[in-house]
Order: sequence, then structure tokens, then C-alpha cells
Amino acid sequence: MKLMQLYASMKSELQAIEDQMALTVTSDLPILSETSLHLLKAGGKRIRPVLVLLAGKFGDYSLETLQKVAVPLELIHMATLVHDDVIDDADTRRGQLTVKSKWDNRIAMFTGDYIYAKALTVITELDQPRVHQILSGTIVQVCIGEMEQIRDFFNVDQSVRNYLRRIRRKTALLIAISCQLGAVATGASAQLSGALYRFGYNLGMNFQIMDDLLDLCGTEKAIGKPPGSDLRQGNITLPVLYALQEEAIRGPLLEEIEAIKRSDGRSDSSAAVKLVRSSKGIKEAERLADRYIAKALHALEALPDIPAKRNLADIARFVAKRSY
Amino acid sequence: MKLMQLYASMKSELQAIEDQMALTVTSDLPILSETSLHLLKAGGKRIRPVLVLLAGKFGDYSLETLQKVAVPLELIHMATLVHDDVIDDADTRRGQLTVKSKWDNRIAMFTGDYIYAKALTVITELDQPRVHQILSGTIVQVCIGEMEQIRDFFNVDQSVRNYLRRIRRKTALLIAISCQLGAVATGASAQLSGALYRFGYNLGMNFQIMDDLLDLCGTEKAIGKPPGSDLRQGNITLPVLYALQEEAIRGPLLEEIEAIKRSDGRSDSSAAVKLVRSSKGIKEAERLADRYIAKALHALEALPDIPAKRNLADIARFVAKRSY
Repeated sequence: MKLMQLYASMKSELQAIEDQMALTVTSDLPILSETSLHLLKAGGKRIRPVLVLLAGKFGDYSLETLQKVAVPLELIHMATLVHDDVIDDADTRRGQLTVKSKWDNRIAMFTGDYIYAKALTVITELDQPRVHQILSGTIVQVCIGEMEQIRDFFNVDQSVRNYLRRIRRKTALLIAISCQLGAVATGASAQLSGALYRFGYNLGMNFQIMDDLLDLCGTEKAIGKPPGSDLRQGNITLPVLYALQEEAIRGPLLEEIEAIKRSDGRSDSSAAVKLVRSSKGIKEAERLADRYIAKALHALEALPDIPAKRNLADIARFVAKRSY
Repeated sequence: MKLMQLYASMKSELQAIEDQMALTVTSDLPILSETSLHLLKAGGKRIRPVLVLLAGKFGDYSLETLQKVAVPLELIHMATLVHDDVIDDADTRRGQLTVKSKWDNRIAMFTGDYIYAKALTVITELDQPRVHQILSGTIVQVCIGEMEQIRDFFNVDQSVRNYLRRIRRKTALLIAISCQLGAVATGASAQLSGALYRFGYNLGMNFQIMDDLLDLCGTEKAIGKPPGSDLRQGNITLPVLYALQEEAIRGPLLEEIEAIKRSDGRSDSSAAVKLVRSSKGIKEAERLADRYIAKALHALEALPDIPAKRNLADIARFVAKRSY
């Protein structure tokens, strides 16, 4: 089944989740409704809700229960994006003005806090402390990942391992628990929820590496902002780390990154992007991304042969597809 | 019993909570441990943990259980302070450099996020969804209160009712649930936890009004910063609202506030402070603060006559004492 068909087949459930998200963030304080609904309207692939719903097929499927997992997970993801935009000083996301740009940093900070808190009011409706424990533990990791990203800005000597640990926290874990909690909340066995966690984790790792590749190899139209924005803000991603290992590239690339750093992000990163593209870094990052997808697909083997299993495989193959 | 004696009598429990707080925020990412422990070391009255412990005396007292309420509540309070300092552009708090000043705004934002998330990992250890629900619902209100404060900066036409609603959210509710959750977590009856909630709510309202009075009437030494800092940042507090109702004061006070607003907070607020002090606003705010304490003490009447009841009354009378 193509991904579009999958989304079409889940349309009513996804709409219910969308409605519930809007209802959850609506506040009688107009500014909070405005900022939050502005974020909601910007849309997104809603990959976390989709994963929660599919994972729920391996348990005792209940939309009512799964909504209480999907809505908070997507809202928490949104809250981290709002705070990210403050850090990244980003003016647009998905072609829309960011909250920090349309309003200001202070409003973005509290909008994030508010959405996050609202998300918790939904998940705590579930009478399952284990779900809350998994979620709160994961949010801690996400926060540590965000802080690591700040720490690692412009650090050209960081290891690949360091990068992988960071994206694990920043991205992969929330996707992993989207799969896991869909199963846990609907009473699936530990064996099933564990396999789903592993699927989500590897999918998430692939997802972030592909996103980092896109920022280097995509067109401005595909990315929604000029390529090389990660480098402009000092975010040293996997292809760059691999490129830095290449003798002929390392010297000039270091110089370009140093120039960007000195210019405080105002400098053009296109020369650095060109160097990375001309290196083996792209291919090597793609190879690692492929390995994560292979592991994600492997994790699925432990699952019973129901349609949701094939849907998850389709999602993995779609995420892994190069769009540049 | 004097307050010092009360703290002395609870020393080992409070130390256990202090240790648990430090343990909770310690991270293998040095920057997060540094910022978090910097905050912890700045200390504070730990009024929320004290209230949790005393409230627990009305249920089936268990330090182990109460720690899991007290630690997160105090950490969440700390997290809101860190985010507040970003908003207020505050360089010091309790005589210590703030995180946003010692590090920067981005680090302060994620330190707040991190401490908040860590707090949740502790409370979710409790197998009581109702506790989680009460907490998350309250945090939403705190966030709305923070946003209202931004909205209301320099709004000289806001009503007293508006001010009271804002401080209810910003301050009183977290103190109210400190009392309530200490009782709920230890299995006290709804009648008892309800009375404790009302005690904490009225105590919290008094607490914030007294804090706002202190900012206008205290010495720089007592406040830890020059008086009038609320006005400098545009925070229109109760005594100012009352002063604005006084015909002879309103005109000149509006001019002073307008001058502060135009100067973007760099202007001196001492002339405005002087006007408020010369008005009836101070006395009227004191009178309202007294009414909240009377209500707090009244709420205690529904409680059985155990030592903790007298301790709570002592705390209320101490908080209500003018220290200016």
C-alpha cells in the first residue's frame, strides 16, 4: 500500500486526533490559542500519531485509548519544536512563520511550556503509571539531547558516536515510544511492545540522518529554507563528520566552518555545503541510514502478520527514500 | 512553635528531600548538573516541601511517598523560576546569578525544560493517576498565569480581579496542591485534602500579595534587588492598582509608569514607588492580604487537632507578617 493510501485509510482516526489536539490546546487566553493553533495549522506528517495507531493494532485496539497517547506525543513534539526555534533563531518552519518570529521568544517559551503541560493533562487521563513513566523518562532524554546540541555547536572534533547519541535523544526516542506506547496502552505483550520500540528507534535514527542529509543535498524548495542551515547554526551533522575524516576535504572544510562560526551565523554556508557534497560523507551517511532501516525492518519480523505490520514496513521504506 | 523550631524539627526529612532533589537533577551531561545544582544551592524556604510533609500528617504518613510529591513540586517551582528569569531578564535571584545571566537564555530555557521533565519522572513513580492529573492540570494553569503576566505588562487599566486571577495561577495553585497532594498521596479523605487545598490556596494568595508589597516597601537589602523592580518590568501589582484608583495619585502615577514603559525598563521607578507608598494602596493591599490569611486559618478549622495543624497555622502567621 502506498503511503497516501495508508493515510487515506486512517483518515477518520487521524482527524479525530487532529480535533482532539486543537481542543486540547484551546485556551480562554486568546494569545495561547492563537500561538498553539498557528502551530497546529502548520501541519506536519503526524508520523507519531500514525505510529501510535498502527502499534495499537497489536494490542486491544481502542481509538479512545490511543488518542490519549497520540495527542500528547504529537503535542510534546510540537512543544520541542517551538523551543527549538528559539534556540535556532528560526524565522520559518514548514514555510510558516515560527512563534518566536510571529510573536517573540518569551511567548514562544511559554507557548512551549503550555503545550507541553496540556499534553500531560491528556496522557494522565490514562490509568497506567507505566505509560507516564516511559513518557517522562523519554522527555528527560529529549531535553538532554537539546542541551547536547547546544554544547556541540561548531564542535568539529566530535565523534560519530557522539552525533548518534545526540540524535537518539533528540529524535529517535520519541518515535520509538510512539510505537511502544501504542502497544503498551492497548495491553500488548512486552515482547510485542519491545519489538515495536526497536522498530521505532531505528526508524527514528534513519529519519534524523535523512533529515540531516536533506539539509545538505535538498533544494531550497524541498527543504523550505536554503540548504546548509544546519551548518550555518553550527550543527555538525553526520555527513559533515564523515567529510571531515577525508584528508583532502578536512582542511578547506574546517576553514569554511570556522568562517561561519566567526561570522556568528550570518555567513553563507554554500561553500561548506559544496565541499561536503563533493566528499564521500553523503554516501557514507546514506549507508548508515540504510543500516538503520534494515534494522527497523528486521525488528518487524517478531510481529504477527497483520496488515499493520506491512503498513509499518511501508512507512519505513518511505522515510528511507531519498527525496533529493 | 516558632518557624525556626519547626524547620529544626523537620530537619532530617527536609534534608532527605534536598538530597533527593540533587540526585534527581544530576545528569551525566555536566552543563545540566551545573545549572541545576547552581539553582538548588541558591536555596529558598522550601515552603512547598514543608507543606507537603505537614499535609502528609493528616493521612498515612510515609516519607518515601511524600518525597515523591515534595521533590517534583519544588523542582517544578524551580523550573518556572528559571523560565521567569528569561522573561524578566533578571540577572540575580536571591543574591545569586541567574542561569540566564551566568550562562544564557537558551541554556536557561532547556535547564527549565530538563528540571521539569526530571520532576515528572519522580512523581510518576507514584502509582496514583489522580496525583498526576492534579499536578498536570495545575501546571497548565501556571503556564497560563505566566502568559497573562506578559499580556498584562504595563496594562494600567486591568482590574483587581484580573490581578487576583493571575496570581492565583502564577503562585497560589502550586502552593494549594502542595497541601492537597501531601494529603491525597497518603490516602487522606477528600474532606481533609479539600480543607488543606483551601488553606494552601489562601496562603498562596497572601504570599504573592505580600511579595508584591515587599517589592514596593522593602529595603534593597531585604529584597535582594532595588525596590520597584516589578514596576520597572511593567508588572502592575495590587498596591499599584489600588493607588491608581486614588484621584490625586492616578495622574502623576500614570505619567511615571508611561515614562518607565517608554524607557523600555531602563528608567528609574523610584518616583512611581514613592507615589504608591504615599497612597492608600499599601494599606488596602495589606487588608486584602490579611483577609486571605484569615481564610487560610479558617480552612484549618475543618482539620483534626494534631500538631501539624498548629504548624500550618504558624506558617500562615509567619508568611503574613510584614517584613518591611
